[in-house]
Amino acid sequence: MTQDADYERSMRRALDLAGNGPATGVNPRVGCIILGADGETLAEGWHRGAGTPHAEVDALSKLPAGGARGATAVVTLEPCNHTGRTSPCSVALLDAGISRVVYAVADPGERSSGGAERLRAAGVAIQGGVLAEEATAFLADWLFAAGLGRPFVTVKWASSLDGRAAAADGSSQWITGPEARQDVHRRRAQADAIVVGTGTVLADDPALTARDADGGLLPGQPIPVVLGTRPIPAGSAVLSHPQAPLFFDGSDLGAVLGDLHERGIRRVFVEGGPTLASAFVAAGLADEYLIYLAPTLLGGGRLALNDIGVQGIAEQRRLAITHLDRLGDDILVIARPLERNDHVHRNH
Amino acid sequence: MTQDADYERSMRRALDLAGNGPATGVNPRVGCIILGADGETLAEGWHRGAGTPHAEVDALSKLPAGGARGATAVVTLEPCNHTGRTSPCSVALLDAGISRVVYAVADPGERSSGGAERLRAAGVAIQGGVLAEEATAFLADWLFAAGLGRPFVTVKWASSLDGRAAAADGSSQWITGPEARQDVHRRRAQADAIVVGTGTVLADDPALTARDADGGLLPGQPIPVVLGTRPIPAGSAVLSHPQAPLFFDGSDLGAVLGDLHERGIRRVFVEGGPTLASAFVAAGLADEYLIYLAPTLLGGGRLALNDIGVQGIAEQRRLAITHLDRLGDDILVIARPLERNDHVHRNH
Repeated sequence: MTQDADYERSMRRALDLAGNGPATGVNPRVGCIILGADGETLAEGWHRGAGTPHAEVDALSKLPAGGARGATAVVTLEPCNHTGRTSPCSVALLDAGISRVVYAVADPGERSSGGAERLRAAGVAIQGGVLAEEATAFLADWLFAAGLGRPFVTVKWASSLDGRAAAADGSSQWITGPEARQDVHRRRAQADAIVVGTGTVLADDPALTARDADGGLLPGQPIPVVLGTRPIPAGSAVLSHPQAPLFFDGSDLGAVLGDLHERGIRRVFVEGGPTLASAFVAAGLADEYLIYLAPTLLGGGRLALNDIGVQGIAEQRRLAITHLDRLGDDILVIARPLERNDHVHRNH
Repeated sequence: MTQDADYERSMRRALDLAGNGPATGVNPRVGCIILGADGETLAEGWHRGAGTPHAEVDALSKLPAGGARGATAVVTLEPCNHTGRTSPCSVALLDAGISRVVYAVADPGERSSGGAERLRAAGVAIQGGVLAEEATAFLADWLFAAGLGRPFVTVKWASSLDGRAAAADGSSQWITGPEARQDVHRRRAQADAIVVGTGTVLADDPALTARDADGGLLPGQPIPVVLGTRPIPAGSAVLSHPQAPLFFDGSDLGAVLGDLHERGIRRVFVEGGPTLASAFVAAGLADEYLIYLAPTLLGGGRLALNDIGVQGIAEQRRLAITHLDRLGDDILVIARPLERNDHVHRNH
């Protein structure tokens, strides 16, 4: 077996170990293998969440003093160079006498990146990009959020084919069918947080839980986040959500996302009414659109999207459609902004 | 060869003959074969348009007096029972001594139907439904219009994914891409008339011609129909259309369609602005929807559809989607009303 194949095999094992970590949280899920001179595994480690040792340190901790001297560290993410609640992994690897570091994906964080460079400068052999594709897919949410400094934002709405969220009198029950509604719940369950406006809470009193077709709670329950200044009734369903809701006045969406990011929230699902959806679009903070189109026409003034700050056609928000399909009688369009958002809020 | 196979073979030939008639016009395209006692073809005929002999009479005219006595007439449409510019075919067949009539499709017209019944009552053997499927497809537009007493109405619009036809300042150029625009022209060319409001003429000065990708005129050019009370400028492009435009005040859409029907117009393409589209939808006069959705968001108040008379969700206009596809970067949705329109205007 070649050395490269050794590294790939170890990287695959390291990705498996990474999967033991918590799926959501501030820190990425990382795995690490320490290999001896003959390619034999000396130690394994993974990261168990914020405040606990990083994967490299976890693996090194299983070896006696000096046990890693001259060894190779295979790690799914470039070793960090950042002193947070733990000291930089780059320093820990140097202190342990590691002579080679093989990693899959570079750290995109502005504060945490540079570990490979620091190790190389200290004479450690560096090999990046091993199983990069698998590792990138595994870390997609975290990588996106780390690069942008905020969670990935999906804005969802359901409308008639003429863009209405409700009839003129406000009634909207059953615009979309059961397949579409179930699809929304499945996707909700994959988000870390679900964001609504106080207007939606007052009008619809939504539970904001992710439920299966029988109404049972799905394993993943996003944290409900309520934006707005209007008080909500003490008996609101969202107050009985399995996750404690978060409240913001919503005047600065970038600041809200920054706060959610600090709490380890990586995927945000915005589905809380036309005003909120329009505000996210207008601010350039929609990274993905989930648009459920029901085969019906409503006319009237209850639009799924209101003003988004577009005056002339030159300012239109062009999208790239990534998915188009029927869901029961309805249509699901998934799209992403075609151009990079102009107004992206970075938080570091 | 069995007798039934004889009839099918002759019916196929009769459908071919029917295709010699004019594709649009007040009357259906019909073909007729007169078969002798041994299944041999005695005569063929077809209808050449309003005011000329019907197919049965055309075929009979090719035989000497008494030449059709005891013969079988194979005809693509139930012989008419109506005295218009010509006398009823049922009577002509009886007078000629035809002993059997084989037809494909029953005549749905309130004034013209009943021919088979009259013939049967007079002792003629009747066999309907031979190659009914092919003949129905061949006569689809005429059958629909004859049954409803008005042309088949396709309402077309193009909008952003949020239902806007233009940006807030009215600019809309290039919302949809070249594939979608070319698709519109191809479908226009298949219509007998294209209907717009004076508002669209004043705002956009459209040529209302069906053109190919290079701007050349397609073989079919629908008659432009302009609805509204506002005068249009003498230099308007529509006044140079290869077909002379028709003008109506548009206050009674049912009457407009009745007039167009009397002129032999069977397929109407409505693409003349949100006000007109909304009026057709509100009146229950949209038989088909062509909705081109561009992958863009515009927000604002320039909607593709305005008020359609729906107050509560119970009055929503549910559609059945018959076609969903990508057209370049755009989406084409073709749909039909799910329930029968409540307000269908019948004109006889």
